[in-house]
Amino acid sequence: MPYERDIITKLHAYVPGEQPTSTEVVKLNTNENPYPPPQAVMDAVHAIDGESLRRYPSPTAQPFRQAAAEAHRLSPEQVIATNGGDELLRMLITVYCEPGAAGRAGEAERSEVARGGIGVAEPSYSLYPVLAAIHDTSVTRVPLGDRFALSEDIADAWNSAGCRLGFVVNPHAPSGRWETPELLGRIADRFDGVLVIDEAYVDFAKNDSLSLVRQGEAARDNVVVLRTLSKGYSLAGMRFGYGLAGAGIIAALDKVRDSYNTDAVSQRAAVAAIQSREVAADSWQKVIAERNRLIDELSQRGLSVLPSASNFLLASLPSEGEPDSVGPLPQAAAVYQSLKQRLVFVRYFDQDRLRDSLRITVGTPAQNDRLLEALDEIAATTPQA
Amino acid sequence: MPYERDIITKLHAYVPGEQPTSTEVVKLNTNENPYPPPQAVMDAVHAIDGESLRRYPSPTAQPFRQAAAEAHRLSPEQVIATNGGDELLRMLITVYCEPGAAGRAGEAERSEVARGGIGVAEPSYSLYPVLAAIHDTSVTRVPLGDRFALSEDIADAWNSAGCRLGFVVNPHAPSGRWETPELLGRIADRFDGVLVIDEAYVDFAKNDSLSLVRQGEAARDNVVVLRTLSKGYSLAGMRFGYGLAGAGIIAALDKVRDSYNTDAVSQRAAVAAIQSREVAADSWQKVIAERNRLIDELSQRGLSVLPSASNFLLASLPSEGEPDSVGPLPQAAAVYQSLKQRLVFVRYFDQDRLRDSLRITVGTPAQNDRLLEALDEIAATTPQA
Repeated sequence: MPYERDIITKLHAYVPGEQPTSTEVVKLNTNENPYPPPQAVMDAVHAIDGESLRRYPSPTAQPFRQAAAEAHRLSPEQVIATNGGDELLRMLITVYCEPGAAGRAGEAERSEVARGGIGVAEPSYSLYPVLAAIHDTSVTRVPLGDRFALSEDIADAWNSAGCRLGFVVNPHAPSGRWETPELLGRIADRFDGVLVIDEAYVDFAKNDSLSLVRQGEAARDNVVVLRTLSKGYSLAGMRFGYGLAGAGIIAALDKVRDSYNTDAVSQRAAVAAIQSREVAADSWQKVIAERNRLIDELSQRGLSVLPSASNFLLASLPSEGEPDSVGPLPQAAAVYQSLKQRLVFVRYFDQDRLRDSLRITVGTPAQNDRLLEALDEIAATTPQA
Repeated sequence: MPYERDIITKLHAYVPGEQPTSTEVVKLNTNENPYPPPQAVMDAVHAIDGESLRRYPSPTAQPFRQAAAEAHRLSPEQVIATNGGDELLRMLITVYCEPGAAGRAGEAERSEVARGGIGVAEPSYSLYPVLAAIHDTSVTRVPLGDRFALSEDIADAWNSAGCRLGFVVNPHAPSGRWETPELLGRIADRFDGVLVIDEAYVDFAKNDSLSLVRQGEAARDNVVVLRTLSKGYSLAGMRFGYGLAGAGIIAALDKVRDSYNTDAVSQRAAVAAIQSREVAADSWQKVIAERNRLIDELSQRGLSVLPSASNFLLASLPSEGEPDSVGPLPQAAAVYQSLKQRLVFVRYFDQDRLRDSLRITVGTPAQNDRLLEALDEIAATTPQA
């Protein structure tokens, strides 16, 4: 008999994208920035001395809070530093969602008990429901519209289900679609709970939602913006994310924070990163230029690619035998496997609305060329329909 | 109206020891190792390249699991790496304890509902009950015996309360007392839940409890040993802990782990650390020698110091006006404040059985001399009773 709780026994853990150790692999599967971190970050890491490691770090990452507040024109009390953005997601669920809501109760009680969970848009980042399952709280899934458009109505659907937290990733993953802060503000106004705007990929977009948390007319008291240094600052290996919100929300989150949740090295690196915005922005411009080239190139090969404000693309493949099929490529899952055999890793999601698509991280020009060559090879060796 | 759950509004967060930034302070308050980390750790940190930071780390810290397994004669499947030992504590409560048990239910239901929580020995590490409160699970507190002795009976008390997890810190904090693995094994045998042996300070003791998790006659399927690099390896700033247990327990813990909970830098540093045991052990020997000197010196000054197998001491002060008072020192809280004014930080706990005591981390010979001088100054300036 296992000792763990039933919900843990039944739990399906989150499956991250593969992290191959081979340097031969063209790795376009987990949305890393293809360019190195700013030199100031490397200098900060290399300057770490034994004394900084021997002693406990600042429990709240106070120097980072100060630096982030300056960078974003907020106050330090509006910033919480976390061990990657994922830790912030977990903390949000702990603070706002009632456990025991995920369905252990009988159906009769359930409609009442199930209140207090999270709301998501489908499809979206698959970690949100996993974190809800770990907390044993309910998940209300609302389908996105055509081309993954978000609608204000999502707030009503979440309210009907009693959701305490709603998650929106903007730019959207896995499509790259971008929604305006005005729309997000209207959703926050209609939503009875706290709206989390996951801006993991915002550095590659034209605008952000910080007006919704910055003191001023647009400020909402029920919005949390999530940021990470993983993508924009090329620091996926460092695990540093942060939340931006009103001081009341940050204080509540701080209560459930592990006592020293970020370390001395990542704190120094994070300060250096956020103060190197212009250096990092060079990489964003290069990624954006390649993103646009890749959209053209993939479209020429018969793939259908949605506009993206992110550092990845969602490219759908023509179905085999479909009347308007314009290219010879086989179905997405097969292409995913064929690319992998050619050491080009992209991401395939075996779920509704995504089975005909590949999510492709934008790489360097050379990496993207390797992808395109591999696709051409696959097309050339595939029997015509 | 706040958006957060009622239990969060009411929650009292964990209060870590102060982390002064001044280098003037003689910091004997949070049990850091006074000696620097092994040079191999510094080399590993300084060798980090941009590519390692740009990419996601190993989600499970696989190279560390391998190195730890070799160091402890276990298999890698028996090791889980965590963001400090504190993260492991939180994960254990998530996996084994039922939320909603901490008393929202009416008293009538409560005796049933309250089952499924944690058991602790009192006094102990004050984070355990805080983590239970965050999870909204019950805490069963069983007083330790004379001189903080642990008894097998604690298992019966925990069983009666339906505890699913029991926490024992060995060597004990804040007393430094050490219990044998045989006693801990008998507690595990009598306990219906999972016994967590928090070995945060074990490097300063003569023996450990790994026989209880290592394959063999003494192995128990309900024991988790917690380790940290914070103290023994002088890496409090790095946040790296780990759990050792049977593969089933580790697999359950792994399900609730944040997807990338340890970073590329700390993973490299941790591998280097655990492979530098002999270097680190030099610091342990120096700390032990100073610990013994400090016990003598404090005893000569009228303080009563328990034997310690750790890198700190619990020193109790004679009560003012007590008939057998042998020294002129005022009560512990006042001495704590007076030491602080002299820039010597120790830890004072305003709780039962500890109000007459100071917990003093063993420092370098020079730091310990500063402590003793400050105590002598305080004694000299205190009016005789």
